[in-house]
Amino acid sequence: MSETTSDGPRPVGPASPTATAGPVSPGPSPELAARAAALDAADPLADRRKAFVLDDTVYLDGNSLGALPAAVPGRLAEVVAREWGELRIRSWTESGWWTAPERVGDRVAPLVGAAPGQVVVGDSTSVNIFKALVAAVRITEGREAPANAPVRDEILVDAATFPTDGYIAASAARMTGRTVRPVPMAELADAVGPRTAVVLANHVDYRTGELHDLPGITAAAHRAGALAVWDLCHSAGALPVRLDEDGADLAVGCGYKYLNGGPGAPAFLYVRAEHQGAFDSPLPGWNSHAEPFAMAAAYAPAEGAVRGRVGTPDILSMLALETALEVWDGVDIEQVREKSLALTDFFLECVAESVPAGRVGSLTPAERERRGSQVALRCPGAERVMGELIRRGVVGDFRRPDVLRFGFTPLYTSFGDTLRAASVLAEVLAEVLAEHPAGG
Amino acid sequence: MSETTSDGPRPVGPASPTATAGPVSPGPSPELAARAAALDAADPLADRRKAFVLDDTVYLDGNSLGALPAAVPGRLAEVVAREWGELRIRSWTESGWWTAPERVGDRVAPLVGAAPGQVVVGDSTSVNIFKALVAAVRITEGREAPANAPVRDEILVDAATFPTDGYIAASAARMTGRTVRPVPMAELADAVGPRTAVVLANHVDYRTGELHDLPGITAAAHRAGALAVWDLCHSAGALPVRLDEDGADLAVGCGYKYLNGGPGAPAFLYVRAEHQGAFDSPLPGWNSHAEPFAMAAAYAPAEGAVRGRVGTPDILSMLALETALEVWDGVDIEQVREKSLALTDFFLECVAESVPAGRVGSLTPAERERRGSQVALRCPGAERVMGELIRRGVVGDFRRPDVLRFGFTPLYTSFGDTLRAASVLAEVLAEVLAEHPAGG
Repeated sequence: MSETTSDGPRPVGPASPTATAGPVSPGPSPELAARAAALDAADPLADRRKAFVLDDTVYLDGNSLGALPAAVPGRLAEVVAREWGELRIRSWTESGWWTAPERVGDRVAPLVGAAPGQVVVGDSTSVNIFKALVAAVRITEGREAPANAPVRDEILVDAATFPTDGYIAASAARMTGRTVRPVPMAELADAVGPRTAVVLANHVDYRTGELHDLPGITAAAHRAGALAVWDLCHSAGALPVRLDEDGADLAVGCGYKYLNGGPGAPAFLYVRAEHQGAFDSPLPGWNSHAEPFAMAAAYAPAEGAVRGRVGTPDILSMLALETALEVWDGVDIEQVREKSLALTDFFLECVAESVPAGRVGSLTPAERERRGSQVALRCPGAERVMGELIRRGVVGDFRRPDVLRFGFTPLYTSFGDTLRAASVLAEVLAEVLAEHPAGG
Repeated sequence: MSETTSDGPRPVGPASPTATAGPVSPGPSPELAARAAALDAADPLADRRKAFVLDDTVYLDGNSLGALPAAVPGRLAEVVAREWGELRIRSWTESGWWTAPERVGDRVAPLVGAAPGQVVVGDSTSVNIFKALVAAVRITEGREAPANAPVRDEILVDAATFPTDGYIAASAARMTGRTVRPVPMAELADAVGPRTAVVLANHVDYRTGELHDLPGITAAAHRAGALAVWDLCHSAGALPVRLDEDGADLAVGCGYKYLNGGPGAPAFLYVRAEHQGAFDSPLPGWNSHAEPFAMAAAYAPAEGAVRGRVGTPDILSMLALETALEVWDGVDIEQVREKSLALTDFFLECVAESVPAGRVGSLTPAERERRGSQVALRCPGAERVMGELIRRGVVGDFRRPDVLRFGFTPLYTSFGDTLRAASVLAEVLAEVLAEHPAGG
């Protein structure tokens, strides 16, 4: 565990398993309340909140499921009533359903620093990781290598990865005759070697919120002749991602977290232009065929990102995501990053001020350049604490064994929300610890 | 091409490439109109039509995209506004999102003759074919074989299969060290041998509408020690399917055709109970883990059909499908079959009466036991003919090079619709052939 401290004036401090009950929190100080009000008044993204359906809840779980964009219900009703209900089959051409995976992909592209034609939307993140890893292994197989070069028989995987990445990597390795080697992110750049085919890494750690060095690790992979596949689930829409500029080979990401596409929204797959010709999918469904309606017996892949498609795309969810992406129109992702850091700074500061020292420890790096858009706090009784927070209108989530996750979505989270979350957390911790002084 | 004739009093007859222009069709005979009215009046499923949003169009493309069930728009609006918009992340438990793939699977199960606990919904048909084929190969690998038995190194695939099945089979074969051998369905039962690992076959041919012998081919596969994987895309919801009774090992099917789940609705996967313990998925995403929220580094598969899950399920489309399945409440699939055959009989009879002999040929078997729920007609200029049909409110679809497909969905297609379709077809054929006597 990499315990870190906040950037605020007082350290959050490490969790103490022997913490004893303290007084009920007196609520936020007038100074913090004034700071929150001033920060909100100066927030250039404050008006984006109107683009979402929100209520009195402080919703800090947009890193798991983004809030509902206000335009989605109307658009989805139209898709159902008009495009499906009236036009029916004609909508595949007349309503642009057939080309939606590439069109929505091009809408995601600017958020991940990709020029058009390299992102396609569809299937789940897990399925896209499988496509990306197998295709990446095959690209390295297809390259000319020096006569005495060892076989590139290993896939390096972030040892702290979100589990599905590791499970799918193991399957991709098994099916391509490779092995998986888990490596801590901090050692990944040094671990890449002549036997490495592919590195699979998370841009932001789902648990700790740590932001990893995408350009540095990608460059290390390339120096060793390997490819880098990035999981952007916790960075796309949360902070600037520069896939083209930083040389990423392939990437996948989630449609339902910071992109607000709705529960189980389709994921996206980035295939760098220079790799598209060699992208050899393990899931060559008819939607990726060069001429799908020729119904040819032999497979011939289409050109471009469409090669990453598989079967018939899930239109209702795809078009919900397309509409959800409209909230990004005119938004500067650098401003989003600035606000995200200000929110997480402020949250850590408020927690440090409201929560007695030693009650919680932060897993999230204090250094801004190593922080994504969430704060992960450890405390005894975390599951119970999160249940109480949710009951009191502050929604984050719990991750075993003792982690409270708070995701900060700059498009709709205010500094006032942030202060309230910290204050309610302090209240709950005081009460829970009063009942169970040793935690639990 | 297996040209066949209708069961009606006059043969539809083979298409003639040298057909010459005939007179404009005079419209249906009073006798046929009276027959259609009488059949509709006696139809025990006639009231099901009210469960769908329909207009004046004669929609005969439910074999490609089912019509909109009337209950879906309201339910989807509720899912979006209440479950996503208000409850947000809490809906994974409180709204039953997490268990939807199995729950909706159990709703599909009776339509395919499966006892509960064997069907899971999610991902596209293509992705499910990949899971089923790789898992089936691994099941045969895991079995004890006699000392001198040859390696089961081939996957037999219906030679006329919908293309995606063949493409995915080729990938599954490549990734498991097998080869694919395409075999015409009529020869499949005899072709299965000691080297066969798996047979992948279509229950109903997507192009001709021919119904294949699921129990016979499955039994032949079993006699040879192989497994049978069935593609039910064109049979589930169209006619009785008896997976449990007929011994099918694995099966996949489509949510958006006869199940009316909406464009790109998730597909379903059937894993026979006796194979679930050995079902070793090539896509072991975190949703199929025994303890998904343990976030364990090592994969351990869940028990049961849930083992067929992969990543986060697509909730909007999944719940649209769940609601769409309500139209089956109280419906007897044997009645559906009886009406389906009556509709296709009647259509062929009307075509035979309205269309001058020699103008179209039927690809669909005349024998009821070999017919699914569609009629495929060949004629010169078929693409243009279908365009005109659609313009005149009769929606089927065109498949290259010269096939008109008409799908009959007994829950919402009437005999009056059927007669109108045949009459408009006769009109269009007369006009198109008048302009282009040699076809085109």
